[in-house]
Amino acid sequence: MPEFLSLHTPKEALNLLLEKIQIHITSEEITTETALGRVTAEPIFSPYPLPSFSRSAVDGYAVRAQDTFGASDSLPAYLHLMGEIPMGAEPRFTIGPAECCLVHTGGMLPVGSDSVIMLEQTQIVSDYEVEILRSVATNENVLLIGEDVKEGELVIPAGFRLRPAEIGGLMALGLITVHVIKKPIVGIISTGDEIVIPSEQLTPGKVHDINSYSLSALVEDTGALPVRYGIVPDKLETLQSIAEQALQECDLVVITAGSSASSRDLTAEVINRLGKPGVLVHGVNIRPGKPTIMAVCEGKPVIGLPGNPVSAIVIASLFLVPTIKFLLGSIDSKPNPYIEAKLTVNIPSQTGREDWIPVEIIQTEEGIFANPLFSKSNLIFSLTRADGLVSIPSASTGLDAGAMVHIYLMRCR
Amino acid sequence: MPEFLSLHTPKEALNLLLEKIQIHITSEEITTETALGRVTAEPIFSPYPLPSFSRSAVDGYAVRAQDTFGASDSLPAYLHLMGEIPMGAEPRFTIGPAECCLVHTGGMLPVGSDSVIMLEQTQIVSDYEVEILRSVATNENVLLIGEDVKEGELVIPAGFRLRPAEIGGLMALGLITVHVIKKPIVGIISTGDEIVIPSEQLTPGKVHDINSYSLSALVEDTGALPVRYGIVPDKLETLQSIAEQALQECDLVVITAGSSASSRDLTAEVINRLGKPGVLVHGVNIRPGKPTIMAVCEGKPVIGLPGNPVSAIVIASLFLVPTIKFLLGSIDSKPNPYIEAKLTVNIPSQTGREDWIPVEIIQTEEGIFANPLFSKSNLIFSLTRADGLVSIPSASTGLDAGAMVHIYLMRCR
Repeated sequence: MPEFLSLHTPKEALNLLLEKIQIHITSEEITTETALGRVTAEPIFSPYPLPSFSRSAVDGYAVRAQDTFGASDSLPAYLHLMGEIPMGAEPRFTIGPAECCLVHTGGMLPVGSDSVIMLEQTQIVSDYEVEILRSVATNENVLLIGEDVKEGELVIPAGFRLRPAEIGGLMALGLITVHVIKKPIVGIISTGDEIVIPSEQLTPGKVHDINSYSLSALVEDTGALPVRYGIVPDKLETLQSIAEQALQECDLVVITAGSSASSRDLTAEVINRLGKPGVLVHGVNIRPGKPTIMAVCEGKPVIGLPGNPVSAIVIASLFLVPTIKFLLGSIDSKPNPYIEAKLTVNIPSQTGREDWIPVEIIQTEEGIFANPLFSKSNLIFSLTRADGLVSIPSASTGLDAGAMVHIYLMRCR
Repeated sequence: MPEFLSLHTPKEALNLLLEKIQIHITSEEITTETALGRVTAEPIFSPYPLPSFSRSAVDGYAVRAQDTFGASDSLPAYLHLMGEIPMGAEPRFTIGPAECCLVHTGGMLPVGSDSVIMLEQTQIVSDYEVEILRSVATNENVLLIGEDVKEGELVIPAGFRLRPAEIGGLMALGLITVHVIKKPIVGIISTGDEIVIPSEQLTPGKVHDINSYSLSALVEDTGALPVRYGIVPDKLETLQSIAEQALQECDLVVITAGSSASSRDLTAEVINRLGKPGVLVHGVNIRPGKPTIMAVCEGKPVIGLPGNPVSAIVIASLFLVPTIKFLLGSIDSKPNPYIEAKLTVNIPSQTGREDWIPVEIIQTEEGIFANPLFSKSNLIFSLTRADGLVSIPSASTGLDAGAMVHIYLMRCR
């Protein structure tokens, strides 16, 4: 197989792909309440300060701090009680020397007051008088105008994937719509003469299409829109014509090859005919997934995945997911979270090749263990039994039982 | 505030709630292709073995292993080539002594053959003869019937949240529909005289409703259906009537209190009137979120969240999310993934109280750091700036700068 003579490292392969992509996904304006998980198309600035008025941070009495100076249990200050500030309303009086008023957490401070003393540090003397048992500093227990965000401040950068906190933050600012990047459209083509749709009864030699559906789910989970182009037989003209249609209609095209070598060669040939520059990478030094193809045709990414369903999911997680995030302009550069665990058995590996091993997590009193789920040929149900993946870096010749490893969970988002 | 005299630990509080819940969410049958992230309602067994026929795991020649015994480069075995097995088809011949046929990866083995020798270990002599340069063992390079799953084998347990791999696995078995637990319906009520809807222009003293939307997003992200009941003023009869309606229409009700102490007391009173056993926990030894209420009314969970938007999200992540998973019957008992990082500054804490601190992740050449984002009163934009949360266990008096901590990312799913 001449295509494998020079294998790229996974990192090289992804970079070669990303740097040649030339399409730009446009944005759309949607309601903020439906924007969870979407990626901002532009930086968002605050239209006004938050809080937009001085608010009490506690239940207490709004005062002039200077009127409390020196107050203590043994020498209280006595302030005249002007009334109560109702929640959500503007105070109808101001606070002058030796005056105070009751204010609740979140309530608006009246003009003249500059601090709040907590209820617990006061004592009611009468309907009109309060004993102040401690002094407060100016601004104490007060949220000042703009203390959360100032007017015009950048609150969410472009390329940010919106979480529940951001949805809330946008609403706090009255921003009930938001500009987000449109969901990239990802065309998925399955090839292989042995593949039939899942609703069809199997006859000898046939297997059901797995990849179209597992990949659609992964694409959906990454924030893109999967479009399935069905199962295409291992015939150049047919595959060529479907692939051209998909490239025209989608922002990214994924072709999973049939499992045979000839089917994989066919995929590469078809991709090369789709447009320039064509295949950039054919063969990645990784297991599973060596026959992976990375291409850019007419500016759009085209990825050829191995037909084996486990390889297809693992390789899609490592290459398709970051490519979709790239199209989304997502700036998420934070490390992926993991679970540290102790390996139960030795895992041999070949230097120069990066391995990804499905593992199950076993929790015992002695700690958390990663138990590799080896299977002869990456059968799909070895992956459904797995909690996550452990990688063996290319420089390593393998990992020993007892080694501490990072498990990256396979899960929705 | 008498309600806080005996505070529960977070774990106690959650257990008290979960053990009193008495509703049972029914299941529904949906198409497998739309089942990503849904939770299985029953165990799923394989209707037939996979593979359902003996398949080659490589490109090579199907042989009888015994015909290759002793074969080597210097002393090859010579086998008669019967033809090629096309992908996806049943072989139209059988393999007898000293016979072989070409088979591709995934192709069906002909009757009589019991192993496959890889192409690389053979040499073509003529159109009808192949040199075998190595011996193979019985079953070598063959995926036997049922090697992935046997007929009747449990493939996915009940209570399992479906990932892309399971979607693929179900399709492999021709299971194009699946029984999943219905999405629990979560009613969300915001209270507070100071709260107005986000599309309304703010007047002095008023703030926009944040919690209804951030909580809806969190509920949606956890696999449940949020239903917003709007903003209810701090008036017992009004809140009571809306809460009763929500309890009747939903599987779980969340009420976020206004920020004042009196609004929180009102919430507790209303919840207690909704049904038995009523409030089980009022006050949790946690920061933020001390005034949290856990209740069960008419068998359904009712959770009273603090009005502060940061507290509401943190507490919802710790209590509402696991309660929804409990309603879904989700068996996920794996640890949460995290990122280990070095703390940039000291964080003081009070013994007996569990603290959750928003942090940003800072990546430098010296490693990954967790930088706490303190803010005076848990302002919403301190949370939008955070990548995740770090917890300080209740036994601790705080953490020192340089301590290694686990950051739990705040993100979608």
